[in-house]
Amino acid sequence: MSALAVSRDTEWFLFDCGEGTQTQVARAGLSPTRLDAVFITHLHGDHLYGLPGMLSTMGLDQRSRDLVIVGPRGLKEYLDTLARLRTMFVSYGLDVRELDAADEVTTVHETADCVVKTRALDHRLFALGYRLEEKPRPGRFDLDAAMRLGVPEGPLFGKLQSGEAVVLDNGKTVTPDQVLGQPRRGKVVAYCLDTRPCAGATDLGNGVDLLIHEATYTEDLRAEAGQWGHSTAADAARTAREASARRLLITHFSSRFPDVTPLLDEAHRIFPDTVAAEDLVSIQV
Amino acid sequence: MSALAVSRDTEWFLFDCGEGTQTQVARAGLSPTRLDAVFITHLHGDHLYGLPGMLSTMGLDQRSRDLVIVGPRGLKEYLDTLARLRTMFVSYGLDVRELDAADEVTTVHETADCVVKTRALDHRLFALGYRLEEKPRPGRFDLDAAMRLGVPEGPLFGKLQSGEAVVLDNGKTVTPDQVLGQPRRGKVVAYCLDTRPCAGATDLGNGVDLLIHEATYTEDLRAEAGQWGHSTAADAARTAREASARRLLITHFSSRFPDVTPLLDEAHRIFPDTVAAEDLVSIQV
Repeated sequence: MSALAVSRDTEWFLFDCGEGTQTQVARAGLSPTRLDAVFITHLHGDHLYGLPGMLSTMGLDQRSRDLVIVGPRGLKEYLDTLARLRTMFVSYGLDVRELDAADEVTTVHETADCVVKTRALDHRLFALGYRLEEKPRPGRFDLDAAMRLGVPEGPLFGKLQSGEAVVLDNGKTVTPDQVLGQPRRGKVVAYCLDTRPCAGATDLGNGVDLLIHEATYTEDLRAEAGQWGHSTAADAARTAREASARRLLITHFSSRFPDVTPLLDEAHRIFPDTVAAEDLVSIQV
Repeated sequence: MSALAVSRDTEWFLFDCGEGTQTQVARAGLSPTRLDAVFITHLHGDHLYGLPGMLSTMGLDQRSRDLVIVGPRGLKEYLDTLARLRTMFVSYGLDVRELDAADEVTTVHETADCVVKTRALDHRLFALGYRLEEKPRPGRFDLDAAMRLGVPEGPLFGKLQSGEAVVLDNGKTVTPDQVLGQPRRGKVVAYCLDTRPCAGATDLGNGVDLLIHEATYTEDLRAEAGQWGHSTAADAARTAREASARRLLITHFSSRFPDVTPLLDEAHRIFPDTVAAEDLVSIQV
């Protein structure tokens, strides 16, 4: 069952929510109250059935903050039916955003520090991939330069760091570009499952620090992969290469592979910087 | 999350199906293909959210036999919505039987060896309790008596055991009552959650070998129990005593009780033959 948490200092995002996700969230030590938004790729149960239980547990824990939930059309009917039948305990607002097409990379959610974009993939059921971009962070603060310009240690440092010009006691103005290095590019992660290899996945994965791509089968099961709308490990690796991703994390393995070595070997031959997902594995980006 | 399997030689029955049940079914070594029927007490997620995943897994495992699912009205809408949104993989027939009232103990399912009955309980959402009765089994075969009457070892033994009279080579007729002891009463188990203490639970638990009854709180939290439609451990024990149950299994403990000793102590003072449920615990009836 699929679920991926992308965690930053102050918030985290959940991509897919298969059965049992709330248990894994607890095991991973993630606080449900810090969860900012949920992104569902498609409505197959192994990506979805953990959502209502997770929402109810947050309700019982007295979450008050609204929760954004993004996914394919049908998600709202699913949640509305569960609510109408009184199966769920949800005491906070659900901001459900449905899509039934996304032929271009489209922004679906934004926080102070991040933007999440989506694009349709190619599965046998309408499926969305996602791309989480951190906004550029200010350049590093050059302490020596600030001292040389006569800026006193204290609140003026913070103003300069946040992009404001400051006036010193001697009447001179110091501007941020005098004390800050180049803005630093934010990290970018893309999440592409379930899907056949497709242009959508390559677009979402363009230049990312980490591409998470499904690899249900090996190449000798290419026919099954096509029939069921999935990728082989080689497909995932080729997508990473075409997208110029820095690293690849493969996941969503068929139960035919209790040992993932054949999948990993296949991907490594095409894209060496590949790792295989495991339950509760944590990767620093 | 709630789920109880009652397993016999050739079949098993599932009572409630909270999130994660399919994983526990696998851990318990129960074969999904031998599952005969599912009984849902009420539509709160902690008793229900494991059902669609379990149904899908049986579909992927190519189950072909129909599955009976009994529960409160709304269950069909829940399953139909999930099917219409294409979230489930179900390749076999679902025989969904809904109730919205059951003021008397009513038969809802029957197999060759068992009968399952239901009766409404008293929760804040419409809830059903269940009673599984094994049909009486034939008396023990008296080998000595059969030999004395001249019955030859072989197929005639089987006919007598299954209740047929047989004619011997010497023309004499031997009837089953000549070689069988008293019919043996089948075992009876009742499952009563979620509920306040109520006449329905006492009816379902009447004379059972094992009463499974919820015990969410201790007596000092009686107000919460009433407000949320639950029982205390003392309530469960009193119901077992009034119903003349042989044994009591308490379950569905509030998360306030990481240690169940207070609940068990409270029940023991009223009904000594009480045990507390644990994940994957197995009880011989």
